[in-house]
Amino acid sequence: MSTANAIAAPSATDPLVRTTIERRDVGPRDVLIEIRYAGICHSDIHTVRGEWGEVPYPLTVGHEIAGQVTEVGAEVTKHAVGDRVGVGCMVNSCRECENCKAGQEQYCLRGNTQTYAGIDRDGSVTQGGYSTHVVVDEDFVLRLPESIPYEKVAPLLCAGITTYSPLSHWNAGPGRKVAVVGMGGLGHVAVKIAVAMGAEVTVLSQTLSKKDDGLAFGAREYHATKDAATFEALKNSFDLIINTVSAPIDMAAYLGLLRLDGTLVSVGAPPQPLPVPVFALFGNRRSFAGSSIGGIAETQEMLDFCAERGIAPEVEVIDAGAVNEAYERVLKSDVRYRFVIDINSLR
Amino acid sequence: MSTANAIAAPSATDPLVRTTIERRDVGPRDVLIEIRYAGICHSDIHTVRGEWGEVPYPLTVGHEIAGQVTEVGAEVTKHAVGDRVGVGCMVNSCRECENCKAGQEQYCLRGNTQTYAGIDRDGSVTQGGYSTHVVVDEDFVLRLPESIPYEKVAPLLCAGITTYSPLSHWNAGPGRKVAVVGMGGLGHVAVKIAVAMGAEVTVLSQTLSKKDDGLAFGAREYHATKDAATFEALKNSFDLIINTVSAPIDMAAYLGLLRLDGTLVSVGAPPQPLPVPVFALFGNRRSFAGSSIGGIAETQEMLDFCAERGIAPEVEVIDAGAVNEAYERVLKSDVRYRFVIDINSLR
Repeated sequence: MSTANAIAAPSATDPLVRTTIERRDVGPRDVLIEIRYAGICHSDIHTVRGEWGEVPYPLTVGHEIAGQVTEVGAEVTKHAVGDRVGVGCMVNSCRECENCKAGQEQYCLRGNTQTYAGIDRDGSVTQGGYSTHVVVDEDFVLRLPESIPYEKVAPLLCAGITTYSPLSHWNAGPGRKVAVVGMGGLGHVAVKIAVAMGAEVTVLSQTLSKKDDGLAFGAREYHATKDAATFEALKNSFDLIINTVSAPIDMAAYLGLLRLDGTLVSVGAPPQPLPVPVFALFGNRRSFAGSSIGGIAETQEMLDFCAERGIAPEVEVIDAGAVNEAYERVLKSDVRYRFVIDINSLR
Repeated sequence: MSTANAIAAPSATDPLVRTTIERRDVGPRDVLIEIRYAGICHSDIHTVRGEWGEVPYPLTVGHEIAGQVTEVGAEVTKHAVGDRVGVGCMVNSCRECENCKAGQEQYCLRGNTQTYAGIDRDGSVTQGGYSTHVVVDEDFVLRLPESIPYEKVAPLLCAGITTYSPLSHWNAGPGRKVAVVGMGGLGHVAVKIAVAMGAEVTVLSQTLSKKDDGLAFGAREYHATKDAATFEALKNSFDLIINTVSAPIDMAAYLGLLRLDGTLVSVGAPPQPLPVPVFALFGNRRSFAGSSIGGIAETQEMLDFCAERGIAPEVEVIDAGAVNEAYERVLKSDVRYRFVIDINSLR
């Protein structure tokens, strides 16, 4: 066992505090990673505040982890000391079910092991990336491209793969009209990736406050969802809508934007069921789907794609001491576009 | 104009009565059809009772129409006097929108013209198939295969295409596990078609009362949805679920039955929005879709497919005078599996 400096949530209501956590010994197939940067995902906030269910406090969150290998187990073949590596939302899966065998470990039928608040192979609760180091099975460690700085690559491990996977699966590309709902941490990456894939991209955001950014990222159009005329003007337009917003949306209005065989994919979700008017699905043979992060091989593919196309998230780097303030700003959508913690400030 | 004998609903609450209705003159591209049989669809009942919105009474319903051509307009090329022909749920569309041009007239962006309660090209209200004859544009008239008797082919015009289209679109076939929810007019045809397509078919019905029929139609398994163990035993099983039931269903339970990339397609719909737990869509990257009848070319394809594979609905033929009683029996699910009116009894 080793001890890592970390930031943890003591309860659903207390601010995060500096503390120490235990990491398991490096097993034969494990990699020890010295963490350099960790992104702050809205999921981290939902989780520590208990909004997504019971949480084993104290809990260290963070599943956008970028760092460097400092030790490897005897049987490790995929990574070596000194490598730039990353860890995303999961650190293990059963590896035996049909989904794992298909390389879709995120849909492991026995449940993948989440990077934090999961139950690790030794029965302990997994602790996330707001910490100085972490021990992870080599199969769940990604290779980070040299061309993207650590602090910018970190958010790709969740925000990047969460949007890349549905864009790829539902064929965003030339000749396809794609709308991205929400211009936050996920949304702004979705715009960049969809544009790089060759799709014609429209941003649907509450207001036009981030319009200049959206167009700079390559979006063709940018509309305010507060304006009812948006839904009339864009009716029957899109092949694919990626909804990155976790708040409930008016499903009839958004489904109405889909053209023939269009799909609305939610990657964010409200805790309550969404009322779906089935007649809105009948028109244009529409679909409403969900998508959850991506498999390990696909995450590597996404990282390589972003490096090749020069895509990186927009980040604001903060010290560990500023995490609670950052959480408040995330809740007010006051960040362009992802907070990333400089883990050196924890050492 | 000509006068046809018909059965019409005087209001949402009165029983249907015998009456006469007007049919337009046979235009240059029109076909006059002497109707032989007309199926009774649950939609007919929803419509005449005003459950799907305002209705222009008196109204003659019926959109499963089988008959014989007795006159054609001067420019008609597709049909000739004496031909066996059918008419389904629509009798026209704009023919200019992208969906019409793609042969998906059912999704006409200006709205297709429904066979009854629609607004016809001359501004009159369209009247359906519970009548002795009808005048229809030749492009919306189907050729009926010789090998299926009139009374059995009629229900294919709605129940057949409504289930064939999603089964075909979502690739029911060898190696695919398909569940059909509901063993009524649509469901029993869905089972026969999915089996003929080569899929492994399971029926999910409220009880096991029609199990022998389901297995005789080729289903591999038959389970009662009243039994909660069904949902546990079949978790993560199906590539495709065709839901033929219009009543609300427990979406979390049904979505849970889908395996990786599975889709639940509703062809029936409750008037109220269905609460969909988005987290149930995240698992296995599931989709919830709607499908509405099929295009004209696809309807012809379905008729030819059924003839080739020897598929026909199970029907109970009634005289026109028994329609009100038949409606009551449909509402009690007391029919195996489709009532068809012998229109000779109206002459």
